[in-house]
Parts: sequence; structure tokens; C-alpha cells
Amino acid sequence: MFFASDNWAGAHPDIARSLTEAADGYAKAYGTSDLDKKVELTFSEIFEREVAVFFVGTGTAANSLALASYNRPGGQVFCHAEAHVNVDECNAPEFFATGSKLVPIEGAHGKIEAEALSAAIARFSPDNVHGGQPVAVTITQATEAGTVYELDEIAAIADVARQRKLPLHMDGARFANALVTLGATPAEMTWKRGVDILSFGGTKNGCWCAEALVLFDPAGAREMQYLRKRSAQLFSKSRFIAAQFDGYFRDGLWLELARHSNAMATRLAAGLSAARSGRLAWPTGSNEVFAILRNATLKALRDKGAAFYDWPAPAGLKETMAEDETMIRLVTSFATKPDDVERFLSLCD
Amino acid sequence: MFFASDNWAGAHPDIARSLTEAADGYAKAYGTSDLDKKVELTFSEIFEREVAVFFVGTGTAANSLALASYNRPGGQVFCHAEAHVNVDECNAPEFFATGSKLVPIEGAHGKIEAEALSAAIARFSPDNVHGGQPVAVTITQATEAGTVYELDEIAAIADVARQRKLPLHMDGARFANALVTLGATPAEMTWKRGVDILSFGGTKNGCWCAEALVLFDPAGAREMQYLRKRSAQLFSKSRFIAAQFDGYFRDGLWLELARHSNAMATRLAAGLSAARSGRLAWPTGSNEVFAILRNATLKALRDKGAAFYDWPAPAGLKETMAEDETMIRLVTSFATKPDDVERFLSLCD
Amino acid sequence: MFFASDNWAGAHPDIARSLTEAADGYAKAYGTSDLDKKVELTFSEIFEREVAVFFVGTGTAANSLALASYNRPGGQVFCHAEAHVNVDECNAPEFFATGSKLVPIEGAHGKIEAEALSAAIARFSPDNVHGGQPVAVTITQATEAGTVYELDEIAAIADVARQRKLPLHMDGARFANALVTLGATPAEMTWKRGVDILSFGGTKNGCWCAEALVLFDPAGAREMQYLRKRSAQLFSKSRFIAAQFDGYFRDGLWLELARHSNAMATRLAAGLSAARSGRLAWPTGSNEVFAILRNATLKALRDKGAAFYDWPAPAGLKETMAEDETMIRLVTSFATKPDDVERFLSLCD
Amino acid sequence: MFFASDNWAGAHPDIARSLTEAADGYAKAYGTSDLDKKVELTFSEIFEREVAVFFVGTGTAANSLALASYNRPGGQVFCHAEAHVNVDECNAPEFFATGSKLVPIEGAHGKIEAEALSAAIARFSPDNVHGGQPVAVTITQATEAGTVYELDEIAAIADVARQRKLPLHMDGARFANALVTLGATPAEMTWKRGVDILSFGGTKNGCWCAEALVLFDPAGAREMQYLRKRSAQLFSKSRFIAAQFDGYFRDGLWLELARHSNAMATRLAAGLSAARSGRLAWPTGSNEVFAILRNATLKALRDKGAAFYDWPAPAGLKETMAEDETMIRLVTSFATKPDDVERFLSLCD
Repeated sequence: MFFASDNWAGAHPDIARSLTEAADGYAKAYGTSDLDKKVELTFSEIFEREVAVFFVGTGTAANSLALASYNRPGGQVFCHAEAHVNVDECNAPEFFATGSKLVPIEGAHGKIEAEALSAAIARFSPDNVHGGQPVAVTITQATEAGTVYELDEIAAIADVARQRKLPLHMDGARFANALVTLGATPAEMTWKRGVDILSFGGTKNGCWCAEALVLFDPAGAREMQYLRKRSAQLFSKSRFIAAQFDGYFRDGLWLELARHSNAMATRLAAGLSAARSGRLAWPTGSNEVFAILRNATLKALRDKGAAFYDWPAPAGLKETMAEDETMIRLVTSFATKPDDVERFLSLCD
Repeated sequence: MFFASDNWAGAHPDIARSLTEAADGYAKAYGTSDLDKKVELTFSEIFEREVAVFFVGTGTAANSLALASYNRPGGQVFCHAEAHVNVDECNAPEFFATGSKLVPIEGAHGKIEAEALSAAIARFSPDNVHGGQPVAVTITQATEAGTVYELDEIAAIADVARQRKLPLHMDGARFANALVTLGATPAEMTWKRGVDILSFGGTKNGCWCAEALVLFDPAGAREMQYLRKRSAQLFSKSRFIAAQFDGYFRDGLWLELARHSNAMATRLAAGLSAARSGRLAWPTGSNEVFAILRNATLKALRDKGAAFYDWPAPAGLKETMAEDETMIRLVTSFATKPDDVERFLSLCD
Repeated sequence: MFFASDNWAGAHPDIARSLTEAADGYAKAYGTSDLDKKVELTFSEIFEREVAVFFVGTGTAANSLALASYNRPGGQVFCHAEAHVNVDECNAPEFFATGSKLVPIEGAHGKIEAEALSAAIARFSPDNVHGGQPVAVTITQATEAGTVYELDEIAAIADVARQRKLPLHMDGARFANALVTLGATPAEMTWKRGVDILSFGGTKNGCWCAEALVLFDPAGAREMQYLRKRSAQLFSKSRFIAAQFDGYFRDGLWLELARHSNAMATRLAAGLSAARSGRLAWPTGSNEVFAILRNATLKALRDKGAAFYDWPAPAGLKETMAEDETMIRLVTSFATKPDDVERFLSLCD
Repeated sequence: MFFASDNWAGAHPDIARSLTEAADGYAKAYGTSDLDKKVELTFSEIFEREVAVFFVGTGTAANSLALASYNRPGGQVFCHAEAHVNVDECNAPEFFATGSKLVPIEGAHGKIEAEALSAAIARFSPDNVHGGQPVAVTITQATEAGTVYELDEIAAIADVARQRKLPLHMDGARFANALVTLGATPAEMTWKRGVDILSFGGTKNGCWCAEALVLFDPAGAREMQYLRKRSAQLFSKSRFIAAQFDGYFRDGLWLELARHSNAMATRLAAGLSAARSGRLAWPTGSNEVFAILRNATLKALRDKGAAFYDWPAPAGLKETMAEDETMIRLVTSFATKPDDVERFLSLCD
């Protein structure tokens, strides 16, 4: 019963196999091999336009490079207050972008609302050098709260950004999970709604280490080469990332894995909604479930080997909780077993 | 006949197998899994003392983090003029260490001499804030010229460094190759000769992506955790690096691969020394061979499919070369086939 | 009727004279002249202990260097949400400290409360590398809201900081104004209450360009020399700052100027409290007055030549304001004329 | 007999007076006062075209901001090996530009030759991301060796830079001294010969603290505003710099001061050429004289109160020196007294 994180899982057998097949033989280094080129083309096919793709080692690297590529002196980046870039990356975005600032915006269920974004940007006057200058907006899809932006919500945010000529970045660490929830195409969920640059994550959904930065405007590719190398993210045997993506995309494996993961979360959410010992904190949209359970139940679950994290309840929700209740986060993955879900739920009742 | 670089090879089958075995099951993330811990212990055993180990994705990351950990404002790092950190890392060391400067020192065959180091450091007076302050010395073992520092040469450099209380870093991208050349133990080639911090490379010697930063003083580990995370080098599924090292160290595989690689280079060097159409640029100490060949021979080799790079000849050597000669670099690896070596040599005669 | 800012004033005649006296003759450069040394001693006398003093050109430089000197990778600096370092320095603190983050804390009237600080720090667990690490606390005295921390409020904040071994920085851009309000000694308002490092401002109180970084622990002075030089803040003719401070401190001029400035603000505040067309936004503690006036009155004032800035009203206060009211900020200085104050008030009634 | 440095002098009386006149009254802050605007116009007149001007506090700030404004990831800046930016600014250029690298070029008498520059740039291939990318060229006029680039030498360097689309920066800490030596106009010595951005120094030539960054392409001004503020170089009472420049430019004072300073150096150089106890190291072109004297003479000079610095003799020259000789640097300034020069020379004979 491992629900601590989707990165506690290893790699899907097909991806491990794809990697092993790439072990043999010689290939050009630093991202110039045939396999690298082939996978880059696959990205362009998936997104239905020519994109520039940069493989990197971690989601933090992808996010930080994306934001760094747009930074300017005194740069202000607008993000949700609980965004991964803001609270879980040890200032990597500020470091990569040399002293940029992340401007936190509050919003229910991990989502920025267009109106709140507009108000936050409006605080920065183009005439006031002391306050710095807005340089980018970033959203996470699926969000850190397990919810998903609707397509028109993304478009609304992009509209606000465009009014101030700000690029829109999407942190897609759980891109596939959001995609299958919405039933949208990759193009629809990104550039067709105004996204300029995407952190495309494979690691949480069945790869070992496969993250890609996707630039919908290939003009940015020249500088990104140097940015990536300077950040020590240009892998000599780049094909080991390419091979993972090659397996990931083959026959739609990536979507299949995300569907499984989401289905497990949906089942967990349904079960918890019906449980007497607990309830959902808010609706589940991807592969993360936030729930409030009685402490006694949590103890029993952990005694039986369930792994998951307590989570700080936001103001508003906290007041509704009893003293003997705690909020927790449950994350499912491609590797989550239905039996584990059922066993978990049986212990919640 | 692939002699372009040791990173054109893929992964050794044992390492691919080790990784596949680690694909299944759940494990804690971010370097805290049992496998991570086990491999960290292996490092301590190999180096015969307690060391702190940090897995990272690239050699550039290991080098840059090592130097960053010792940086101070106005920091001057002493290195060979042709060191990888100085000419091949796109300013990553300067970036990670926020505006440090690499002070290049000339030296034959890729090696710094203790006396030259001492003179370079002496230019920086502790009373002159304008000049900045020396903060570290770095050497590469095996060097970028394919040569190897003798143990007493390392000790002599460490002595000079210690007189100014400067830490000594070793870039060990080809650590194993140097080790088997010297027939020394890992401890003898590092901390027993005054090395404080080591970039330990596995990638060039049969892994896909396995680099480690080894701190001989574990007191530095606390800050390094934050440095690594801030640099986007903390891998969520860190076990995929640990598993590679696990296979790498098993039954001495790493030394066996380095011995093969070096033997292939030694054979190449011997053959080229005896060839009428070429000669060695300088003696070969590891798995890199620098040679001067007639252009006609080079053309013939490339026509037959040989892959290798031209290399700029240093002053002094350049004057000895005929107009129809070019200097080249040949790199062997764990995957180099003896037949390819013989075929290459047969085309040189 | 110039109430726009205390930096719209020029220099006090005594300070201009002191500078002119220093124009003649030769003196050692870069802070080593006799006059520099003399003024440094004066600082030690004023603070009743040996301090290390670094002259710099701007308050932003002093603040940024202070925070940079304590930074570590992933560093979190706790400040008031409206602190100058957070909203008016164009990310200079983040830049000087290479990607540190300022963690904003809300608090009434520009002041952090010890309890809120404690809660903010508690969010950062020493075991969670992802969240970064707390490195410093900074407060502004007098605050950006024109209020002043009581001595025991400073001590309470220092206590919280000390529990997490965090240094406490004080932004004293208006140090003298706060000092005369409290009737405290410089020692009592700083190191005797737990302040470790101080940005001591002279510019707003009658100098042209005289800011000093005061280290209560001189052990930090060695690195600060390099930090300052690397930041381009080491002035060759440093005596031109020393001479200003020399005049500033002579015969208690600095306290006299602050008393005048505060008295002018007190008179403004009293007058506005009694005015029918307006009211104070909150009590005045130094030389800044925040008031709410009718728009018609504001227009009349500006028509008569009064200079001052509108100010965004904080939530809570905003709701109490009528539609035809605006919040403004009035700043007095050593140069404010009593007649201008009376004329301003006569127009408010 | 003060020949240690031109920054050991104070301020010219006219400049002190100009500053005192600006002490009184109110003026807009942060570079927007009438006086700031007036002086900016004077710069445009002096340079015979519209320029953007940014006042800063130190020459190091001007140089570092200039180079930072052109930096890109992995940026390589070409400079003379002995350039102030390379050896006397404590890595400020690398810090302001976030990990750029200064590529040192050797050259006689402090000057880069166009051919050597071309060769240095050629080492960086546009196809090799590992080596970084060239971003700027910087020269010093007058040079750190007291020599002066001829106009066509500047043009030749600019030509090389332009071929790689690199901007050309001029460090003009001693701009006026070079100008009067060449008898050129400011326009002729800068943009008419291909200079894109200039650090214009007033401090060494009679001001206290007056440096300006001059952009010949005003399009760069928008970002420079933020760069300057982020670097803590935007002075609140900016008029105190403007006032110095106002006095500096009035009635050609700046050129008069430079002529005096140069004349003093010329007299020193002539005297030393004729002296039996010493000789010039190389010809003198501005207000710095490099000479080789007998140690006994140097001791006698210092016993009589002469202040000057020993200087490391470059290879080539060093071999020509006797064991009892030392190389020294003598710097004259606006404040140098003819009597002191004669007295110094009388002691040399």
C-alpha cells in the first residue's frame, strides 16, 4: 500500500526494456544521436507542430531553465503560492534565473484564477524600477493539489499574461495525468491555449529519469542550448533519456499508464467519500487524493504497512476538522495495484 | 572503429541488468532508498574511510558543485589551462559558484606542476581585496591529455595547496583509468595524497549516467545537500543511479572495464609509435591517445569508417609537424573491440 | 510643501561643509585614510563596543550585502511583506545573495510580530532539503509604515531568531528617527536587543550619500571586504563618505536633525487628526505620516504645490474609506520648514 | 610627493563648490531631477549624438554593468590580461554577469592587438556549446600601462568585434587623459571608431565619486535601468553625482585637469629618461609613468616622503633589469604640484 509518492515507483518494464535495447553500440553524444533526433520528432508529432526539445534530468531543472530563459533583471514570476517551483525546489528557480523573485498568488485547490493573476501583475508598474519587472507566469498541470485546469481556464490565464506580454510556462510534471482527465490533445492543453514553454515530465509516470523542456517557439532553442549546458544538464549519453521516452511514447504507453494511475486515484477518492472514518478534502482530478481521516484510522493503516504523507490543511479547511482528524495526501502511479487500493479502503471504513 | 569519445559507447550489459533489476517495486525517493544507502557504504569501503557521497547526473555537475562548495566572494580557483572545467563546461563552474574565476596554469601534457601552482597562487596577496582570494585547486586524473599524475605529483600539489589552506579537488571523470594505470588504491590516489573532494565518474567507463561527488570530510555534507538540490541535481528516483554503481562495483567490474579500455589505448599507442605514417604526440597513460598522422592516412581511415576528432596541437609541438600532418585524439572505452584497433592500425602503416 | 520623500532634500550645510573641508590634500584610497579610520572609531564609540564598519553607496547595497553575508544555498530570509528589501529593491537582495528567497510575513503597521515570525520559520523543517533553509531575519527600524519597534519587540524577535540560530538584521535607513522616538541609545536599540548586523543610513537624514554596514561581530569583517568589493561598493575616494559621517556625528547633529524631522511629522499628524477633511491611517512614530484625505482636499493641496505620494491602502483599512477618499504618505526631513507644515494643514481643514 | 594613485587626491575646488550649491533645496530623487536631466543632455552634446547616461558610484560598477548588459549564458568576454576588469575588480564583472568568463589576451604595453583578438575569438566555435559563446570585447583607454590606443587601433579592434557581432566596451576610467593625449573629440575616440558602450570616469580626474555609463545605442537603456537598480547603484540623491559632473564639464574644466595631469607625467617621464639612476619602462601616454630605478634611489625617495607603488615587471623587461633595480608606477593627477615633480626628479639623479 504505497501511496507516498509516484516517484517511489521504479520504471515500467517496457521502458526498462527500451533502455536495455539502447545499451549496445555506439552513438553520438550530447543529444545528437539518431535516437535523440527520432524522439525529438516524436515530440513534434505529439504536439502537432515543430517544437524544440531539450532533455534534462529533473523536473526542477526543466522548470528552472524554462523560467531562466525568460528572466530579466529584477524579474518577477507569477505562480501559485503552493507551486512546486515556490515551495519544493530549494530556490533552484531563483538560482538559475539569478535573483528572480517568485510572486505567490493564493487560489483554491492549487489553481490560480485569471482575475487574481491580473491583480497581482497590476501591482507592478512599468514606471517603477524599484519594484522590478514582470517576466513570466507559471502554472502546474495537473496541480499540486491533484486538481486539473480546464482548457478555458488555461486560456484565460494566457490572455492575462499576453496583455502584459508575459510568456506562460506550464509545469507538466504530471502532464499525462491531466491530459487523460481532460480527454484533450497535447496541443489543445498547451500552445492552442497560449502556453509558450512546457516542462514535460516522464519520471512520475513510469520512467526513471526522463524530463523534457518543450519550446513551442523554436527560436528560443539557440540560447537554451547554452543555458542547459551551463546548468550541467546536458547529458553525454543523452540517448539513455531518449530511449526512455521512446518506450514511453510507443503504442500510447504513456497515456495508458496515466489512465491506470488516475483510475486508481478515482477509486480511492470514491471509497473515501463513502467512508465513515474520513472524507475528501476536495475533488480529485488526477492521481493525487487529499483526504481527511480520523487519527485512529491513520494509525491502523500505517500499522498495516500503508505509506503516505500527512499534509498541512489550508486555512478554511482546517477549521472544519475535528481534533482527532488529520489531512493526508495519497498518490497513485502506474505501478499501483488495485488490490492495495481495496485493502486501503477496507481499512478506512 | 569508434574512437571519437568514450561517451559514444552505451552501457555495459551488467550495468543495464543491474538497472533492470531495480525497476520493479517501491523505494524511497530522493536518495534515501536502501539501495542508495548500500551503494554509499560501498564507496566508504572502496575509499577505506567514511565518505559522504552525492549522486549527480553529469561530470560537469560534480565538478561545479565541488568548486562551488568552497567558493567565497572573489574566489580564484587554480586549474590547468586545458582543464575540462576551464574550456569544456560552458562556464558552469563560474555559474554554480556565482562569479568565481578559474585561473589557468600552463603545463606540459595536461599536468600542473607544483612550482607553477605555487607561483600562480603567490600573485594573490591576502592584503589585496581587489585581486580576489584563492579558494581552491583542481586537477584532473587522468588528465585531458590522456596522461596520469604520479602519486607524488599529487602529493606535491596538495602540499602547495595546504600552505595556503586551499582545498584540493580531483576531477575523476576517468578515475578508474588512472587508477589501474598507477596500480594504486582509491585511497592512495586521493585522500592519502591530500585530495579533499572528488568527482567520481562512472559514465565514461560503462555506465549510462552515474557520477558521484565524494567528500572525504563528511562535515561538508550538510551544505552539499542544499547545493545539490538548488542545482536541480537531486534525482527523485535516485536509485537508477545507485543501481548503476551497484553493478559497476560488483566483482570489480569497474576496474576490469578500465583495464580493457587502457589496454586498447596502449595497443593503439604502440602501433602508432611503430607506424611509418604517424607518431605519438606524447606518451599515453590512460585511455586517450594523441597522435600525429599524415592527412592522407587520416582520410583513408575516415573513408573506412573510423570516427575520431582532430585536436589542436599545442605550441612547441606544432612547429615539429609537417604541413600534411594533423594531430588527432583517439579514445578507447570498455566497448572498444580489439579487431577495430588492429584494423585501424593496419590502415596507418 | 515637499513631503514626497526625505530623499528629495539635499544635504545639511554642516555636512556639505565637512565634505568641502575634505576636498583638499592627499589621502589613502579605498577606505584606509585617517579620516576613514577616525569615523570608524566614532561608530564604535556610538555603539559602545568594537564594531566593524563598511561604507557603501546606497541603502539597498547595505541591506543586500548584510543578507548576502549570511546566505547559504536555498536560503530563506524572513521579512515583513512590505519591507523595502521585499518590494522596493528590484531583487537586489536576491541577486547579491544568489537566489535566496524573501519569505514575506504579514503584520499590522509594518511590523513583524514574534509569534508570526515563529510560525513562518516553523514551516521550514531542517529535514526537508526541498524547502530550503532559513538563514536570516530582517526588520526595518523605523518601519516602512512610519512606526517604530519598541525595544522589547526587537528583543522578542531576536529571541525567536536565536532559537533557530538565525542572525537578525536591522534595516536602519531611518535609524536616527527611530532612536529619538524611543529615547534609546544606539546600543540599546541594536546589539543589546539581539541585532547582529545593521544598515545604518545617513542619506535620508541630511547626508548626500552616506550609508554604513555595521557588524556587531567583527569576525565577519574579513569576508565582507570581498563581498563589498565584488559588489562594486568599495569607493576609491572613500573619504567622501567618511567626511559626511564626520559632519553628521559632530556635536550630535544627526540626532538634532532626526528630532526636527520627527517633530514636523508629529505636528502634521496632530493637525491631520484634528482635520475635518481627513484622518490618520495609523499612529505616527517617526518621520512618515500615513493619512486618509478627501480627494478634493488632495487636489487643492497639489494645486498649491504640495508634493506627496498616494499610497495603496491595506486590506482592512480600505473598507473603511469612502469612495472619495485616498490614502497618502507624507514624509518630513531635516529640511522641512514649519511654515510648510502649517500651510499644508491649513489647506486640509 | 604623492604619486601612489590619482585616487589619493580629493576633489577639485570647483567641483566641491558645484556640489555645495546643489545641497540646498528639494529635487526629485533617483535620477529624475532637473540637474540630472541637464547633465544627461551635456553628455549628449559632448558626444555629438543622443546617448543614454547612467550615473553609478564606482568604475567597477560601470564596467561590470556594461559587460553584464551584453552577457548570455556561457558568455566569454575578451580583455587584455592585465585589464582592470580582469585583475583588480575582485570578480565583480563575473558576478554582475552571473558566471561569465573573462578571456585574457596578452599584448605589449597594456594594449590588445586586433590580430591577437581575432585569434582568441576564433577558438570559440559557434557549433561547440561546451566552449561557451563570445559576448563582448573590452578595452581600456588610457590603458592600465599608461599608454593610449590610437584611433585606428580602436577601429581595428572594433572591426574584429563586429565580424563576430560582438559589442565593444571601453573602460574610460582615465578617458579625459587619453582624449587630450590624442587631441581627439569624445565622439572620435568612441562611437565613430566603433565603441558601443563606455565607462566614463570622473573620479580619478578631480571628482569625488562621479562615474557614468554611456550607451551609444539608447535602446539598451530600458534594461539598464533594472540592471543598475538591481546592483544597488541607483542613488536616491542622484543629484550629488550630477552636480559633480556639472562642475566637471563647466568651461572645459575636465580637459584642463587632464592636461595638467598629463603634463606632470610627461615631465616626470622626461626627467626619468634623462636620469642616471633610472629609466622608463616604456613610453608614457597619459598620467601614469612606469620606470625602473635603483633600489637605493627608491629608498632615498621614500625616506623623503615620496609615495608610489612597486610594480611587477613583465617577462621580457624583467630580464633586462639589474638585481638592484625595481620597477615602479608613478601616477599624477589634477592635484599634482610641479614642485613635487621637480623635487622627485632631483632625488633621482
